Amino acid sequence: MPGLFISFEGTEGSGKSTQVSLLAERVRALGCAVRTLREPGGTPIGEEIRHTLKHSTQNQAMKAKTELLLMNASRAQLVREVIRPALAGGEIVMADRFYDSTIAYQGYGRQLDLNDVRQIIDFAVGPTRPDLTLLILVPPAISAERLLARQSTLPFMRDRIEEADHGFFERVARGYQAIAAAEPERVRMVQGAAPAKLVEAEIWKIVEPVVRRSAFKG
Amino acid sequence: MPGLFISFEGTEGSGKSTQVSLLAERVRALGCAVRTLREPGGTPIGEEIRHTLKHSTQNQAMKAKTELLLMNASRAQLVREVIRPALAGGEIVMADRFYDSTIAYQGYGRQLDLNDVRQIIDFAVGPTRPDLTLLILVPPAISAERLLARQSTLPFMRDRIEEADHGFFERVARGYQAIAAAEPERVRMVQGAAPAKLVEAEIWKIVEPVVRRSAFKG
Repeated sequence: MPGLFISFEGTEGSGKSTQVSLLAERVRALGCAVRTLREPGGTPIGEEIRHTLKHSTQNQAMKAKTELLLMNASRAQLVREVIRPALAGGEIVMADRFYDSTIAYQGYGRQLDLNDVRQIIDFAVGPTRPDLTLLILVPPAISAERLLARQSTLPFMRDRIEEADHGFFERVARGYQAIAAAEPERVRMVQGAAPAKLVEAEIWKIVEPVVRRSAFKG
Repeated sequence: MPGLFISFEGTEGSGKSTQVSLLAERVRALGCAVRTLREPGGTPIGEEIRHTLKHSTQNQAMKAKTELLLMNASRAQLVREVIRPALAGGEIVMADRFYDSTIAYQGYGRQLDLNDVRQIIDFAVGPTRPDLTLLILVPPAISAERLLARQSTLPFMRDRIEEADHGFFERVARGYQAIAAAEPERVRMVQGAAPAKLVEAEIWKIVEPVVRRSAFKG
């Protein structure tokens, strides 16, 4: 039985991580094997790279090209060490961010050349692409408010990306819109401002038929 | 006054690092400002990446594409944080390995597609290229012997690349030959099997006129 690859995308504070957990529970309840993972990270090498990206005391000095290459180094490892074997074993893989984040953040947000960004992603992932991507949308004000609440309880979670300028987040949001417009079949938009239970129900309406089709395909 | 960028290349145990130090001394004696650096590394972020590449307990599992992207992440940072400002300030930059290592090791050695390798290098370095590259050649037997001596005194220095298969090192050596053949003006070959003082004299014959030309250019 072939597996199924679902990625979650969205700006900071969109509730992605919560929704990954909730969806994983529901899909496991159907009797499917589920593998959840996060980017950057998800492998021992990837978690080291995540640390360099997010928590290094030196990372304020990190250049945009360095960041792009590190993100994709983590991804190249994750694809080969975890995602491909899991899909080959028929598992349902749920990723908290995948390459659309790189297009939105490093391409649109940091304004690196989009062709360069796509070439490096292609090199890193090869033919391994999400079957379905859930793009959770929240208004910038809610994103900022949730982020602020998280920072005040967990000040160590402040990182370079979250400290970037305001125009940066507007460009990222526009990038996500462009990605969704270019691939409407794969990228499904979900309004994330509602309470988590309602967002969960909305996501389940999209995912359930896909999972059932996939589970009965083999 | 524009700076000068000299890179040192060669297989393991070729004596590159010793020669970088010896050349730096000689050039400083002429009154020039010299910046020496090593790859991967050379910046705080790059040294973190170096650790992940060379000393991670997990690094036996590292994929070739991950390695290529990490090498170039370190390089992208080094070029922008150190090399460009140093060259702009008129310094003579001496690098213990630069992108030819990536073509030889990841391209020829690990057999990644050479066009992919070159594209990623181009992305990382942009227009920043060595003016002169010293390729120090040693017969594989000497390389292996020097490597073994180093490993027995410093066992922690054993790393993934040095533990690779024998065919790997033959491919790397062929890769360096191809690089030198393609750019004979930039890449100058030096026989490294002789005593260090003789190798140093050979290198000085090549470098001295270039440094004097550069120093009087401004």
